[in-house]
Amino acid sequence: MVSFENDYIAGAHPKILQRLVETNFEYLSGYGSDPYCESARRKIKDACGCPEAEVFFLAGGTQTNAVVISALLREDEGVVAAKTGHVSTHEAGAIEGTGHKVLGIDQKNGKIEPAGLERYLKEFYQDVNYEHMVFPGMVYLSYPTEYGTLYSKEELQEIYDICKEYEMPLYIDGARLGYGLMSREADLTLEDIARLCDVFYIGGTKVGALCGEAVVFTKRNTPKHFLTIMKRHGALLAKGRLLGIQFDTLFSDNLYFDISRRAVEMAEQMKEIVREAGIAFYLESPTNQQFIILEDEQVEKLREKLAFSFWEKPDENHTVVRLATSWSTTEEDLAQLKVELR
Amino acid sequence: MVSFENDYIAGAHPKILQRLVETNFEYLSGYGSDPYCESARRKIKDACGCPEAEVFFLAGGTQTNAVVISALLREDEGVVAAKTGHVSTHEAGAIEGTGHKVLGIDQKNGKIEPAGLERYLKEFYQDVNYEHMVFPGMVYLSYPTEYGTLYSKEELQEIYDICKEYEMPLYIDGARLGYGLMSREADLTLEDIARLCDVFYIGGTKVGALCGEAVVFTKRNTPKHFLTIMKRHGALLAKGRLLGIQFDTLFSDNLYFDISRRAVEMAEQMKEIVREAGIAFYLESPTNQQFIILEDEQVEKLREKLAFSFWEKPDENHTVVRLATSWSTTEEDLAQLKVELR
Amino acid sequence: MVSFENDYIAGAHPKILQRLVETNFEYLSGYGSDPYCESARRKIKDACGCPEAEVFFLAGGTQTNAVVISALLREDEGVVAAKTGHVSTHEAGAIEGTGHKVLGIDQKNGKIEPAGLERYLKEFYQDVNYEHMVFPGMVYLSYPTEYGTLYSKEELQEIYDICKEYEMPLYIDGARLGYGLMSREADLTLEDIARLCDVFYIGGTKVGALCGEAVVFTKRNTPKHFLTIMKRHGALLAKGRLLGIQFDTLFSDNLYFDISRRAVEMAEQMKEIVREAGIAFYLESPTNQQFIILEDEQVEKLREKLAFSFWEKPDENHTVVRLATSWSTTEEDLAQLKVELR
Amino acid sequence: MVSFENDYIAGAHPKILQRLVETNFEYLSGYGSDPYCESARRKIKDACGCPEAEVFFLAGGTQTNAVVISALLREDEGVVAAKTGHVSTHEAGAIEGTGHKVLGIDQKNGKIEPAGLERYLKEFYQDVNYEHMVFPGMVYLSYPTEYGTLYSKEELQEIYDICKEYEMPLYIDGARLGYGLMSREADLTLEDIARLCDVFYIGGTKVGALCGEAVVFTKRNTPKHFLTIMKRHGALLAKGRLLGIQFDTLFSDNLYFDISRRAVEMAEQMKEIVREAGIAFYLESPTNQQFIILEDEQVEKLREKLAFSFWEKPDENHTVVRLATSWSTTEEDLAQLKVELR
Repeated sequence: MVSFENDYIAGAHPKILQRLVETNFEYLSGYGSDPYCESARRKIKDACGCPEAEVFFLAGGTQTNAVVISALLREDEGVVAAKTGHVSTHEAGAIEGTGHKVLGIDQKNGKIEPAGLERYLKEFYQDVNYEHMVFPGMVYLSYPTEYGTLYSKEELQEIYDICKEYEMPLYIDGARLGYGLMSREADLTLEDIARLCDVFYIGGTKVGALCGEAVVFTKRNTPKHFLTIMKRHGALLAKGRLLGIQFDTLFSDNLYFDISRRAVEMAEQMKEIVREAGIAFYLESPTNQQFIILEDEQVEKLREKLAFSFWEKPDENHTVVRLATSWSTTEEDLAQLKVELR
Repeated sequence: MVSFENDYIAGAHPKILQRLVETNFEYLSGYGSDPYCESARRKIKDACGCPEAEVFFLAGGTQTNAVVISALLREDEGVVAAKTGHVSTHEAGAIEGTGHKVLGIDQKNGKIEPAGLERYLKEFYQDVNYEHMVFPGMVYLSYPTEYGTLYSKEELQEIYDICKEYEMPLYIDGARLGYGLMSREADLTLEDIARLCDVFYIGGTKVGALCGEAVVFTKRNTPKHFLTIMKRHGALLAKGRLLGIQFDTLFSDNLYFDISRRAVEMAEQMKEIVREAGIAFYLESPTNQQFIILEDEQVEKLREKLAFSFWEKPDENHTVVRLATSWSTTEEDLAQLKVELR
Repeated sequence: MVSFENDYIAGAHPKILQRLVETNFEYLSGYGSDPYCESARRKIKDACGCPEAEVFFLAGGTQTNAVVISALLREDEGVVAAKTGHVSTHEAGAIEGTGHKVLGIDQKNGKIEPAGLERYLKEFYQDVNYEHMVFPGMVYLSYPTEYGTLYSKEELQEIYDICKEYEMPLYIDGARLGYGLMSREADLTLEDIARLCDVFYIGGTKVGALCGEAVVFTKRNTPKHFLTIMKRHGALLAKGRLLGIQFDTLFSDNLYFDISRRAVEMAEQMKEIVREAGIAFYLESPTNQQFIILEDEQVEKLREKLAFSFWEKPDENHTVVRLATSWSTTEEDLAQLKVELR
Repeated sequence: MVSFENDYIAGAHPKILQRLVETNFEYLSGYGSDPYCESARRKIKDACGCPEAEVFFLAGGTQTNAVVISALLREDEGVVAAKTGHVSTHEAGAIEGTGHKVLGIDQKNGKIEPAGLERYLKEFYQDVNYEHMVFPGMVYLSYPTEYGTLYSKEELQEIYDICKEYEMPLYIDGARLGYGLMSREADLTLEDIARLCDVFYIGGTKVGALCGEAVVFTKRNTPKHFLTIMKRHGALLAKGRLLGIQFDTLFSDNLYFDISRRAVEMAEQMKEIVREAGIAFYLESPTNQQFIILEDEQVEKLREKLAFSFWEKPDENHTVVRLATSWSTTEEDLAQLKVELR
């Protein structure tokens, strides 16, 4: 059955598997100290235009968010995030599990609005009871967002300026970073991302890897003993090579960007197919995730031939479903989609 | 350079890589719901002789210990472990990070002694202040231990009887389970392990996998919403296939046991080489980890040609180092060791 | 300066101080095991009509909420509360500090609506991703609410029925319980409260005591080793007598109810004074807290002669302020208020 | 029955109760912002010779330890303490409840030895695996210790020097601080204590107060938003006056020191009575707690007429019991003790 269920339905890019096979019998030391991790870190720093950055590899997104956020916050602080942000909703309380509140603020199409952020902060410090409340200690946003939307360079700059004014680090969740950067509508480069935040992660799991996210601290601001903090969270893989080899491959020969671009091109074709089928979009997304509105009957029929994700119920007779492309989406998949949507 | 540094210096067993390649383009659902995870679970339950067991896949050992222990303990409880246990020493406070104390008790060659455990529990409940102390809520032990030693079936039975008397679950850390079970001195089978505890894990990372540990709840005692608890700890891989395919391969055609047996046979040969070189053992280990006593000068010379792990300093002029074999150790490695130790 | 700033501006009811003085030199054992605690527990159980209840004394409200909630929740669970609930807003993240999310739901005048609660729960379990979300593990509400409003018996019954349907305990924060029960509009007795929830606390700090809250588990449902859990949270006073003597006094000769009734009568007089002064109420509150809307200029003038609490800004030129009566409010205080509001 | 069970068997010093009564109807603002708290802070800073110190009032010792320790530690760190330290043994895991390990080290008569501390730290940083271990982040000691013993000025200076060398704050638990400082054998003043550590607390609960401990940060090192951190732990009393008035009274007219001196003089008389009765001491304690060795039969007989605390069983036929004097011990109590021990 053809699947647009999500962007982690396939294994890894074949070049990654090939490198895993080629290096398999090399004896390497553990915990990220091997030469492949070292090489991957160097390539990522180069790609970020950020030689002084520090890079760490973790296995998955929720883990990465919990480790980074809890390492950056003081005990009295929480993390400001869109109410629809991944940390707010779909991480089973991983952030609260580290003792910190997620301070959910309003959003628009999944995005924090600079004015809304500023208003929230101003009101917080004007509240006579603010010492009895959780202090906003950092800002979390995702690029692209959970709704596939993108911040413009100007918006990100504004948000980062607010963060600096309030002395809060800005953290960007880049689970789908490639699919954002390679969108036609993106006016941001990886270097811009690195410049316009304090820490971010480059998602591997959803962009060609079997698993793995690369955390980049860009401002000489790595929390002390971050490796130990990773270990404490059970987030330090013994065979660090598994992550190092994958990111070393992804950041060789522009692979990460090429496969990302292809995935968003596939998404553009998919949008065309959806439009031609007369189906409405729930919102305009310029990246690999597309949210469409189906009648409930349509959903029932389609699900026998097509895998997709339920998203939400905008009203009683309709359902928003998500179709996602990824590095592994094929022309055949799209052709099949066209047939099914007809 | 030849390496006996640890049992995770190589990649994965080639059959695992082959299966990853073969299945790479299959579209599979995530989070452990794919057919490879399902198949691996079935095979593991069969191998345990425990059809009613429930099996979950996690990425690494420290993560697994933290998730299982925090899921089993009530708020007033801690976990009883040998002072030398992995949770007591080398997990960067991962257990305390979940809010629970590790109640370290005395050990002998890495093993909890049944009599010592019973004494500790008796004294705890006799203490007039016990309500002001952390309650012993479960027992943790590893098979084999951090020193490569093994519990006999009788010892394990005695410990489990004590646990049942005090209504505490027994949890066995099997990071190197295969290397224990396949030891000549082991009088326990995998079925015995499953029977003589409440939950244990089958280590993959150190026994042929790239990463991965399989937690087995054997007594219809899976904590409610354990999947959610895994997610909360950042321990639920999106591409569950990575773990499912590995364990499905390891538990096909006896692979897990065959490669384990070979590793301990290699260790037996290594012991012979060490003995012939006139080097003393720190303790008698029947499994893949061997602890030998070297003069500090010897250490300096050997480390240029041989990778091994420093363990501890028994006195000013000597060092205990660990040599580990694994599924990936070759005849050539041993031949080289023989040359270097001469 | 006359003060209606809050309901904890004065010391303790004189009878409490008298009993502290009278018993001061008795040698008593600690941690709640003295005869005054025992007597207070018995009187509270009698007043609740709940002989099988178990009663514990803690020092303050935030502490009590954190201890009770974390003792009742499993690791995968959070506490459902109104977005305006005390645990949601003004406890500095105390609940998250125990690792649990506060699941804020919509409210009306500070109250959870049964239909809203049911809708939230239904939607939670209908969500295909609910295993990736924090499970609703209990419901928290306060009686009276942070806005001084009251649940009717019917509403509470409906909420409790929903809780039982979803197998979640219901916990009532009674920081101001007396001021609720003694309101003219209350159709609930203390016995009803005890019957219509699983655990609640009787507030002392705001109702005549120097400090202290009495937690009542009403359904033979005390978490195991609750005393140890209190100790773990630093919530077990060495001199338990300080709490025992206070509650023993409050629950002798109807004192708790008499001083509560007087405080709400004072509030009714205060409402009359406010109405006569032509000042609007922000909402209708039948208890000791009154929320009134002032022009910002008025606020500036009044604050020189009257202590009150800022609450929120409904628009640019107005401020909502809170005036609270308590057991210590005097006729003179009200007379002074009348003069100042004129 | 006469009682030497502990040093918190009586209420409060009469002057404290008198002040509570006198101030009872003053309308004061909450959370430590009232003038009595302010006055108490000033007097304590004066007594410490430390005008730049910051002082906070909490309710009890375990609470204070948990709040201070968790506010000072980074996520990768634990607190070094004697294995017999209060945080190691009798706080029901309160420190672990904040996510941090207590790193227990060897002790002698309840005291950390400077050489032992240094050895522990040296070995920690020499361990090749130290990044996988909990970092020593601060040192905790109590003055007097749980065994009533005292550090000399030289010992404390040495320990503090080591702490500074390793850049770790030193925290002194002064639950019984007065009974230490007023001992004949003390060569330390309150000013010395303030100078030779980074933070300490002055115990009230055991030295004349109903409840309350005063935390003193002495090196302009108060953790940011410490009040909020207290609130988060449920450690911020609404009626801060209860603590402020008590400490204001204790630090007026030398009261804290006078009642402490009297208690240790009583302890010296008690030692004489014990010696005359031919009973052996378990160790030499120069403060208010005395540990004596009784035959088990003696224990049975005495407990009918005398309240004391069981401590430990040094062998099968003997028991170590603790007798404690306090500010409330009377000449009659001692006379009675003499009769009973005869």
